[in-house]
Amino acid sequence: MSILVLGTVALDTVKTPFGRRKRILGGSAAHFSMVARLFTDVHLVGVVGKNFPKIHVDFLKKKKIVLDSLISSAGKTFEWEGEYKGDLNTAVTLRTELGVLATFKPVISNKQRKIKHVFLANVDPDIQNYFLSKVDSPQLVGLDSMNFWIEHKRSSLLRLLKKVDIYVANDQEARHLSGEHSLINAAKYLHSRGPKMILIKKGEHGAFLFSDKFIFSLPAYPIHRVIDPTGAGDTFAGGFMGYLARAKKITAEKLKKAVAYGVIAASFNVEAFGVERTHSLKIEDLDYRLKKFRDYVLF
Amino acid sequence: MSILVLGTVALDTVKTPFGRRKRILGGSAAHFSMVARLFTDVHLVGVVGKNFPKIHVDFLKKKKIVLDSLISSAGKTFEWEGEYKGDLNTAVTLRTELGVLATFKPVISNKQRKIKHVFLANVDPDIQNYFLSKVDSPQLVGLDSMNFWIEHKRSSLLRLLKKVDIYVANDQEARHLSGEHSLINAAKYLHSRGPKMILIKKGEHGAFLFSDKFIFSLPAYPIHRVIDPTGAGDTFAGGFMGYLARAKKITAEKLKKAVAYGVIAASFNVEAFGVERTHSLKIEDLDYRLKKFRDYVLF
Repeated sequence: MSILVLGTVALDTVKTPFGRRKRILGGSAAHFSMVARLFTDVHLVGVVGKNFPKIHVDFLKKKKIVLDSLISSAGKTFEWEGEYKGDLNTAVTLRTELGVLATFKPVISNKQRKIKHVFLANVDPDIQNYFLSKVDSPQLVGLDSMNFWIEHKRSSLLRLLKKVDIYVANDQEARHLSGEHSLINAAKYLHSRGPKMILIKKGEHGAFLFSDKFIFSLPAYPIHRVIDPTGAGDTFAGGFMGYLARAKKITAEKLKKAVAYGVIAASFNVEAFGVERTHSLKIEDLDYRLKKFRDYVLF
Repeated sequence: MSILVLGTVALDTVKTPFGRRKRILGGSAAHFSMVARLFTDVHLVGVVGKNFPKIHVDFLKKKKIVLDSLISSAGKTFEWEGEYKGDLNTAVTLRTELGVLATFKPVISNKQRKIKHVFLANVDPDIQNYFLSKVDSPQLVGLDSMNFWIEHKRSSLLRLLKKVDIYVANDQEARHLSGEHSLINAAKYLHSRGPKMILIKKGEHGAFLFSDKFIFSLPAYPIHRVIDPTGAGDTFAGGFMGYLARAKKITAEKLKKAVAYGVIAASFNVEAFGVERTHSLKIEDLDYRLKKFRDYVLF
């Protein structure tokens, strides 16, 4: 089944101990799509400005990402600049220029309204709420957000939680939104606010999925050199949601495997800047690591 | 096979968001033994002062821990006072009084010299070096240490690394001693300094084992409320080394299961202050969680 993903398409400027890249293709929807496309058709919903390089549009098309609802608006493309230091777990944001994102109103086709698997990648929760109301009868809705919205649009985000099936958050966000230190308690609290499942991403420490039926946890796949973690969470979600869209019927077993695909997807993402590694990924690459990953946690 | 453990027996004063305990039984060797005893005979090598409560000695004896080489010296028992805040991942040390530990010279019996499984729990690396030279021909030597010794006795610790099979470190210690941010690279570096295996404990994020043959990683067992993490690393080592001593032949499979026992042992430890939970543990309790833990990571 196809996936509809709402999120940002951005120009990122990133510095890590391993180098710097200026105005490369980034954004939550772009990173998500780069992995989800390996499992199914991905319909990207977003906005770019008139200055968005045609080369990036052509590149996304070449990757078979459906761009019918990627609007090009008057104004500048969303830009983010950040730096990672030390253990590369946390980015310091140096600059954010919303540009066309400030007035973004997503529009989708009648055909896209019928898509059953929806992912609300990180963007203003008011836009996520609005967008979700445009989808006819989604079967599985995933949600991502960030600290900025937890701080500034808490009530919008909490309202949104009631309408989604899976809330995907990193450890900091889960603690921030729940006010709980323990991640298990944070997941419990967030679960009580609506979503059937809470998926907590812990960066180099892996991820865990909390539902009322089971808890499932995985360490990160061992990476020898993390070059740039930007988009790791989005590619994680891309692997997770992508596999579920392909799997169709959602069982506990499928959900666990989906978490594993998410962890594996993120492991590729962090090995290079931007989409430099994920754009050339094949499903066989994911499956190869998935097999190795099993040995890695089996006792 | 029996285990010989060198380490501290202490009086701990601990404060966490869940309460406070004054001068309770603690120390690396005491915590280690409280779990390792479930698998095999544990011979504790350490020192206490004349003020050490007889009730603690009787308690350890009742737990079948062999105290032949627990010296009682003139002076005061080693005391540690610490506090955990926030996510309870790191203790702030408020007070350390070495007491009899300052002049401690371990003595073991001729019978104990022949024990094949040895664990050097956290204590001055010069004492660990000296002690290890007294053991006839150990087959498996595990080592733990702490940031204080990495800072102040780095060369003694590096010398010791060449003589041990398994170095057990937490994430901070591994980064500190290796100078590497990435835990995988930290493990690689530490491995290059001598030990066949590096076992890195990551608190609420589980643990991983690095060897030249394989890497193995596990998340932490999910605990709903961490009450006091003091001794978690020591009980982890107790489960790990204890199982290996019972397993006799050491294979990759046994090592993986030993890591799982370590994680499980620590999960019990953190659920109460001091040895309040571990002292009443049965092997069946560990096995019950071990079984649940498998489901928890299997995909």
